[in-house]
Amino acid sequence: LFPEMAISLGKNLLQTTKERIIQQRRVSLYSGAHGYEEELIKKKLQQFAGGSINLSKKDNGIGILTLNNPKLMNAFTGTMMLELQERVTELENWKDGKGLIVCGAGNTFCSGSDLNAVKAISNSQDGMNMCMFMQNTLTRLMRLHLISVALVQGKAIGGGAELTTACDFRLMTPGSEIRFVHKHMGLVPGWGGAARLVRIVGSGAALQLLSRAPRVDPERALHLGLSEETLSSSDETGALQEAQAWLSQYTEGPASVIQAVKKVVSAGRELPLEDALRTEKDIFGTVWGGPANLQALVRQPKHK
Amino acid sequence: LFPEMAISLGKNLLQTTKERIIQQRRVSLYSGAHGYEEELIKKKLQQFAGGSINLSKKDNGIGILTLNNPKLMNAFTGTMMLELQERVTELENWKDGKGLIVCGAGNTFCSGSDLNAVKAISNSQDGMNMCMFMQNTLTRLMRLHLISVALVQGKAIGGGAELTTACDFRLMTPGSEIRFVHKHMGLVPGWGGAARLVRIVGSGAALQLLSRAPRVDPERALHLGLSEETLSSSDETGALQEAQAWLSQYTEGPASVIQAVKKVVSAGRELPLEDALRTEKDIFGTVWGGPANLQALVRQPKHK
Amino acid sequence: LFPEMAISLGKNLLQTTKERIIQQRRVSLYSGAHGYEEELIKKKLQQFAGGSINLSKKDNGIGILTLNNPKLMNAFTGTMMLELQERVTELENWKDGKGLIVCGAGNTFCSGSDLNAVKAISNSQDGMNMCMFMQNTLTRLMRLHLISVALVQGKAIGGGAELTTACDFRLMTPGSEIRFVHKHMGLVPGWGGAARLVRIVGSGAALQLLSRAPRVDPERALHLGLSEETLSSSDETGALQEAQAWLSQYTEGPASVIQAVKKVVSAGRELPLEDALRTEKDIFGTVWGGPANLQALVRQPKHK
Repeated sequence: LFPEMAISLGKNLLQTTKERIIQQRRVSLYSGAHGYEEELIKKKLQQFAGGSINLSKKDNGIGILTLNNPKLMNAFTGTMMLELQERVTELENWKDGKGLIVCGAGNTFCSGSDLNAVKAISNSQDGMNMCMFMQNTLTRLMRLHLISVALVQGKAIGGGAELTTACDFRLMTPGSEIRFVHKHMGLVPGWGGAARLVRIVGSGAALQLLSRAPRVDPERALHLGLSEETLSSSDETGALQEAQAWLSQYTEGPASVIQAVKKVVSAGRELPLEDALRTEKDIFGTVWGGPANLQALVRQPKHK
Repeated sequence: LFPEMAISLGKNLLQTTKERIIQQRRVSLYSGAHGYEEELIKKKLQQFAGGSINLSKKDNGIGILTLNNPKLMNAFTGTMMLELQERVTELENWKDGKGLIVCGAGNTFCSGSDLNAVKAISNSQDGMNMCMFMQNTLTRLMRLHLISVALVQGKAIGGGAELTTACDFRLMTPGSEIRFVHKHMGLVPGWGGAARLVRIVGSGAALQLLSRAPRVDPERALHLGLSEETLSSSDETGALQEAQAWLSQYTEGPASVIQAVKKVVSAGRELPLEDALRTEKDIFGTVWGGPANLQALVRQPKHK
Repeated sequence: LFPEMAISLGKNLLQTTKERIIQQRRVSLYSGAHGYEEELIKKKLQQFAGGSINLSKKDNGIGILTLNNPKLMNAFTGTMMLELQERVTELENWKDGKGLIVCGAGNTFCSGSDLNAVKAISNSQDGMNMCMFMQNTLTRLMRLHLISVALVQGKAIGGGAELTTACDFRLMTPGSEIRFVHKHMGLVPGWGGAARLVRIVGSGAALQLLSRAPRVDPERALHLGLSEETLSSSDETGALQEAQAWLSQYTEGPASVIQAVKKVVSAGRELPLEDALRTEKDIFGTVWGGPANLQALVRQPKHK
């Protein structure tokens, strides 16, 4: 009777639930109904070219997403914003993926938006469209089925600081800093960084970080819960290796299970309790009686 | 005029509000509308007998709920799941109750589900029904009008670790451990343990505990906020006495007041702020001008 | 092209969004639909006169709100409840305001309600109306566009402890205490103190503070996250100066920006994530391309 578990699974039901969960993950926060004009802003962003967003997917299920515009401390040009959206779509479709490291080229993280791009979208309508474009992308990044880590080397400033909050974890190298510098630009976060920061460090600390705009060094970040660990390497290659070793502690095992873990935690942090419980039940249904579960049961010593 | 406060209370209004709050507490997460077949799963669970769930209600208003299946480290058989539901109903009706200790027999807590029961419900439909059955029961346990403590002796593993998160507090004995071992079974929590864990330790720590499945010892649990205190006794009787003494600090006073305290905190942690505020107002209405309040006012020195 | 940013802002759109945000902030939790009778309770409260609520608005954008009824340790009389509502309205309309300190006269904070007023509203209907009146006011205080600090000197007891939780931060002087004494009055918080306390210290600590009603000294408050800092002065004038110096670290800069920071954090702590993200986008729209933003861009060194 026992090996028939797999057969009795009701694959169709399982498949439907899985698709529903994936679907939810991709639903955009903003559509035309919110006055969002995606095609318009994409055309504008296209005009501000420079840098790139590179993705390397490793066999161990860990992806490396690199912001690459070192001349401007990896500030986002228009085309980099567009490329980030493409890479996130690619990651959503990565079936064997388990983890993701987000980092910057040239031993620094990211300094926010390229001011030339900012000027090009300086009117109110363009600004709101850019804001909605980036919130859509970063919300999808946050909801990826992958366990994600922002590797903060050098500086994570403004929009760069916001980007770190779209990852599950933050690791910092010695001498690096995270700084929500928006106030000094006459701004507040608009890429979702405030809403997410409140959930990471609490509303009191978030209010202090945004209203005073201090440099947050690794020690302070650790204390606030903004960083999980201070790495020992401060060179680019060493830090990346360390970050991968750190992340791989959490990605060991079958992709289906690691992805399900990420999804239950993601539901738990984002939804009201009753909704989170129901989603947990749905996700549980995608692994219960699945291949990894069956193998584990076979390995298990019998009771009685 | 003053003693007439009690008379002027509008008992009907009070009664209605009280009943509404009690009602809310008992509403099940899942019904037929969710595809949940309670009678079907109860029949299945009945076939897997063994162990028991014992409840002892003390005069001081503290109940002791004991998982009793020491041969299997208090793993849940089918009939134990059914009995847990019955005991929770009994606790919901305990008018004089103020506190609850959940513990296991044989100096250990609980090792999750009995694998024989798991095999009996190995198909997808049964698995989902079991999951909804346990979520319904554990949600009602969490929402009890009693201040609850999981006394973790020995091991709280898998479903046992999930059970601890349905209590308000966790106390651990020296050498004990909590371990969300699900990953190694090819699973994620399905009894609501992930959604509740996120609320207790935060989403970052929850993701680490579920994706790496480490043994959490008392010191680490204390640091994470997963445990309130490490007890000094490691023997069964001593630990139970210590846990009762700890809990009784928080249950001193009239049952109506202690129960109202539990309810406002429960609303505060479960509901969005505006709903929590409105529920706090309703619960306040159940004690305002009530017997304990009147007696306190009489005792109070007059101002002016 | 660049200086035209201000012109291209679409002032109307901006104005509408701003007004919507302000509107939201003022919406009352309770109206006639909730059985709330504002005019009735205001008449009752009017009958219990004594003390005052004083507001001084300084040129640096910091307001000082003083509870003034030192004979009764600044307990709230009926007219003080009415005056608090008026002062909050005044603060909502303070366009240049950035920060607020809430404190008590006579080197103590607040001891809750004046028991004579309590007796006057001792029936259930009046009690519920008073509860809704104070929740409406304290919710509006919490949602002010100002960064607020409760300066706790002496004792913050019962409703006084609840009042501290309606501020963004709490500072305590040596020897002061916060005590949710409600249990000893046969009560639970009803002014929203429980719902807010859960969000400040977590549900476990909130349950402990409300069910045991301990005196929380500055050291314990710091450890729990209930206080940000222990001041060094314990005299009234010195403590107020210290509190202003502490707060002014967070209020430096243009009022429009500081207010926007407070609003994004307020949305972040109060709303579900998706709603918080959408509100962050709206608030971002009120500063993007605004005067402070434009000036900062002009100061910025050009890239490339």
